[in-house]
Formats: sequence, structure tokens, C-alpha cells
Amino acid sequence: MRLTLHSPMDMHLHLRDGDMLRTVAPLSARSFSAAIVMPNLVPPITTQQMVRSYKERIMEATKGLEFEPLMTLFFKPEYDYDFLAKVREDIAAIKLYPAGITTNSQDGVDNFSLEALAPTLEAMSELGIPLCVHGETNGFVMDREAEFVPIYERLAKRFANLKIIMEHITTKRAVEALLRYENLYATITLHHLYITLDDVIGGLMRPHLFCKPVAKRPEDRMALRKVAFMAHEKVMFGSDSAPHPRSAKEAPGCAAGVFTAPVALPALAQLFEAAGVLENLQKFVSDNAQSIYGITPPAKEVHLVKELWRVPERYGDVVPMFAGEELAWRVDEDTTA
Amino acid sequence: MRLTLHSPMDMHLHLRDGDMLRTVAPLSARSFSAAIVMPNLVPPITTQQMVRSYKERIMEATKGLEFEPLMTLFFKPEYDYDFLAKVREDIAAIKLYPAGITTNSQDGVDNFSLEALAPTLEAMSELGIPLCVHGETNGFVMDREAEFVPIYERLAKRFANLKIIMEHITTKRAVEALLRYENLYATITLHHLYITLDDVIGGLMRPHLFCKPVAKRPEDRMALRKVAFMAHEKVMFGSDSAPHPRSAKEAPGCAAGVFTAPVALPALAQLFEAAGVLENLQKFVSDNAQSIYGITPPAKEVHLVKELWRVPERYGDVVPMFAGEELAWRVDEDTTA
Repeated sequence: MRLTLHSPMDMHLHLRDGDMLRTVAPLSARSFSAAIVMPNLVPPITTQQMVRSYKERIMEATKGLEFEPLMTLFFKPEYDYDFLAKVREDIAAIKLYPAGITTNSQDGVDNFSLEALAPTLEAMSELGIPLCVHGETNGFVMDREAEFVPIYERLAKRFANLKIIMEHITTKRAVEALLRYENLYATITLHHLYITLDDVIGGLMRPHLFCKPVAKRPEDRMALRKVAFMAHEKVMFGSDSAPHPRSAKEAPGCAAGVFTAPVALPALAQLFEAAGVLENLQKFVSDNAQSIYGITPPAKEVHLVKELWRVPERYGDVVPMFAGEELAWRVDEDTTA
Repeated sequence: MRLTLHSPMDMHLHLRDGDMLRTVAPLSARSFSAAIVMPNLVPPITTQQMVRSYKERIMEATKGLEFEPLMTLFFKPEYDYDFLAKVREDIAAIKLYPAGITTNSQDGVDNFSLEALAPTLEAMSELGIPLCVHGETNGFVMDREAEFVPIYERLAKRFANLKIIMEHITTKRAVEALLRYENLYATITLHHLYITLDDVIGGLMRPHLFCKPVAKRPEDRMALRKVAFMAHEKVMFGSDSAPHPRSAKEAPGCAAGVFTAPVALPALAQLFEAAGVLENLQKFVSDNAQSIYGITPPAKEVHLVKELWRVPERYGDVVPMFAGEELAWRVDEDTTA
């Protein structure tokens, strides 16, 4: 059995920089036609020059592959209309992190009052720049996303023309909010469709499945699966693939992030097929995102074949999800173009 | 400031065997007068001969120290009255594990029907042998203990003369059940008084704080602290100190267990002092357990002094809780006798 995906996109991707960028970017570029690239480098991407230079480094790392990096800025409440108008042509979205909530987010937002955010968000609204949000408070780990939902709701009401993307949602509560507000959209990761907290700490502890937001309860996963499997027009695939070297994962202070870029499409095909909704995968991995973002990615066909594929133990120094396990599908790179 | 504890006991302790036993047993024996020793070796302790031989190995490992290992059998529904009457003099309790629920529990109970358990539990009841229970189902990791509570309640009602000890309780739900049934008692660990799931996976992932049952929510910890701090007569200290070599903790499949034996009394003193209830520590670490078990441990004074103590990074190949951190109290070994 074969499946052809047209211009699949990863709407939430961490490509890092330097050697890690050179290791992981080609893996995304082989499977995807375009990807929204997160700006949480050290220091974060906050200027037009940084956006352009980072994009060049990504293009260099993916040379010869049909792949468009869709760049983002790291949200700052200082951004004004003139700056945003100038940088608009270089970016697809702006990513907002609450301060200190995940990897390299120290410089994020610590004041969510509408007044503090209004000038920048109104300018973004006028310029049609989507706002991507890492929606977690600094509360108890299982409650952080649910506690952030009222902030999503306030933002959605106050900035009705702003497209707000709830990144990597993990809870039933977030899905419910998503469906209530016209201008809320969401990305859903591969791993949150597959796992719950049980997979992370229910048996032995599995650092390679540890991520932020942490995987939640079975009923939360069910809510995510429901909207993903039907390819609800408000949701799109965003892997949040977040590579760390083994030394940072298999250590007493294990970094958060699951590396899924090279396994994402085969694992999604396996999951959607098992749910009897393989025909919805195209929308989930591309069409919905094109509508939500109003973009047209490079034309590219990615061919999947239903053949057992043993996932490599490592890509460079990074351990992928499903390392050493078998997936029912693989990307047929010979015919992908 | 000094604090003298009279015959402190650890009512839930893993001493392992072989080299690990020789590393960790003296650390418990320096701080405690006696300890309930868990039987989940490989294979589990299920015969009188195994109990006696394991006790000898522990005595050998703690030679020269005033310390009484209180032995336990690994619960089997096959144990009959005659066997139990014979082994009674060698054991302080019998420990029941649901099958496959934690380290080396494969041979545990998989049928909790009262009929299946009645012969053994009635015999234990007649012989006055307490039943220690690891109370978790195989459900979702955050719900396992709460889901087991109805089993505790059924057992408590049906075997009203059996002393049932809810081991290492972690939830508000368990505390509520404990208080409702006369013949339910509980041990509480050091780490569950200190941490919540936030400490394990809320920031970076910390394998050395990963244990079963996993640490729960802030309101659960509060419920544990409430009964521990008042030294409620139904609760007693049981560390569940569970050493694993570093290679088993700092790895992709991290084993469950927090090693607290050498830090337990100083850390408890710090916590009880901060809560303004230092005078209740004696009951929590000894008097309550003496009443519940009806035992008199060897007379031994353990002296704590309020002096900053930097916890070693390792004991042998085992990383303790608070490794490299400072505690406000230390055990004064020169005067402990």
C-alpha cells in the first residue's frame, strides 16, 4: 500500500543551530515541504537580521532538498508596528513564550495583562501575523495548560482578528476552548497523539518521552485524537520535534523534548490507518495549515509505503521516538520529490 | 540545638542483597534501631529458611551496630495456618504486592477476591501478623492508589481483626480511607512529605526522585503532611528507601526508587522543625510504630544536631536524595549509641 502526501508541513519545529541544525534539518527537509521554525535559540531570534541569518543557515543545512523554513520571531511586547511591518515579509508567525516555561524561554513574557500586550498584538492583527503561543502557567505540572486556558480566552476575545495558535495542546480542556473561539487554532504533536503520562513514568521512567507540556491523562489524549483524526479544520500537525544530545537526555537533569522529525509521517500514517482515517492525514499535515496560515508551501510529493521499518537507534547523537522499534510505514525516499 | 530520638525505626526499607546490602544496610543501622525489611528480592522471600538466611546476611552487614532487622515474607495466597504459625517467630509482617506493580513484584497477587485471599488473611489475623500492602492498581499512574482504596476498604471490613498497613501512601484519598477504618494504618515516606510530581517532571526530569508510587499533587502532599506532622497514631515513618546503582537510575529505562536511608532523620528533623512540630517526630519515627506493631525495638539513642550538613553526592554507587545539597540537621554519630 502506498500513500502520497502533498506538501506535508510541520507547523512547530525546533531546528536548533550549529552542528545540531546540520544533523536534524535534513531529516525534516526530507519528509516535509515546509515547517514553522521555532525562535528559541540562545539568544532568541528577535531581529530581522537574526531571522534572515538563521534562515540562511537552515537553507544551507538543507541544500538540495525542497524545503521552506517558515521563520518566526520570539515575541517581545516591545515590538511596534513599524518594526513588525518591516519584518513581516520574513516571518510566518511570532511565537510567545511565558517566561521560563520551557527550553530557552527565560526572556519570555511575564505580564499577561491585555494592556501590556495590546500594542504588539494589535499591530500583528493589522498586519495579519499569526500569534503562536506556548500556553502553560507555572502552576502544578498537570494543571499548567488548563490554567492557561483563561488567558487564551481573554486574548481570543480581545483580539478577535488575531489568529492565535495554541501550540502543542495536550488536554481536553484546551480542545474545548479551541472549539469555542473562532480565532483559536491549534497544533498537535505526534507524541501527544501516541502517549500519556503512563508511558513517561508509569513503568520505568523514559526520558526520551519527557517533554513540555508533559503528556497528560488518557481522556486528554482521546480528546486530541478526536479532533486530529477527523482533521478538524482548526487543527494542524506540529511535531514540536525537539532534539537534545543524549548527554542532556540520559542524565539526572533530563532536558524536555521528544525528537520525532524523522519518524513523524510514518508514525502518523500508522496511527491514522489504525483509526481508519488515513484519508484525513493530508488535511492534518498540510491542507488545514495552508488555510489557517494562508500560505502555499512548495509543491512536493512525499510517498509513504506500508512496509515494516525499524527506526534507527540514533540520528547523530540524538535518540528519536520509537528508537529501535518497528513502524508499519516508511518514507519512500526514492520516489519522494 | 540537639534532638535525641529514642529507638527510631524505619517501617519500610529495601536493603537488597549482596554488595548493595553491604553498602546500604550500615547506613540504616547507624540512624535506626530497627527496620521493617521488604522481601522483594529475586526470588522473593517466601520460606522460613529464606527469611532466616536473609536476616543473617543483614546482621552480618550491620555487625557492630545496634540494629534489628524486622523481617517480612512476600505474600502468597498459598500460605496456610500451619506454615504461618511456624514462621511467626521469624517475621514482623507479610508484604502483599499486586503482580507487576513495582520492582521485583512479578510474583505478586493478581486476584483480589476476598475468597482467594481469605484463608491466608484469616490465619494471619488469628496469629496477629500484620499485612503490609503496596496499594496500587495497574491503572493510569496518577490514579493507581486512589483506585486501590476500595480494595483496602473491602479488606478492612472483611478482616476486622487484621492489622492492615497501607504502605507509602501518597494521596488525600488514601489518608481519608486510613482515618475511616479502625484496622487501617499507614507508612509515609520522607520523599512523599517533601516532593510532588512537580519536583520529578515539572522542571528538568529528575530520575533520582522517580519512585513508585509516583509523587502526586500538592493537595495530596498536604494531606500527608497533616497526619505526619501531628504524628497521628495511625501513621508511622517508613522510608521506602530503595537503592539502585547509578547505571539503573541515569538511563533511558530508569528504575523506580529514591534512596533516603542516610538522609532520612536529618531531613525529617528539618521538615518537622520548619512546621513547628519537632516535638512530634519521636512519635512519628518510633512510638506509633511500636504501638501499631506491638513491638519493642532495641533501646538506642540517636542524636541529631542542628548543623549544616552537605549530603554526599554518593554512597558507593548510589545517589541519595538531597545529593550535594545542604540539610539543616545531621546525625551526631559520636554520641549516638
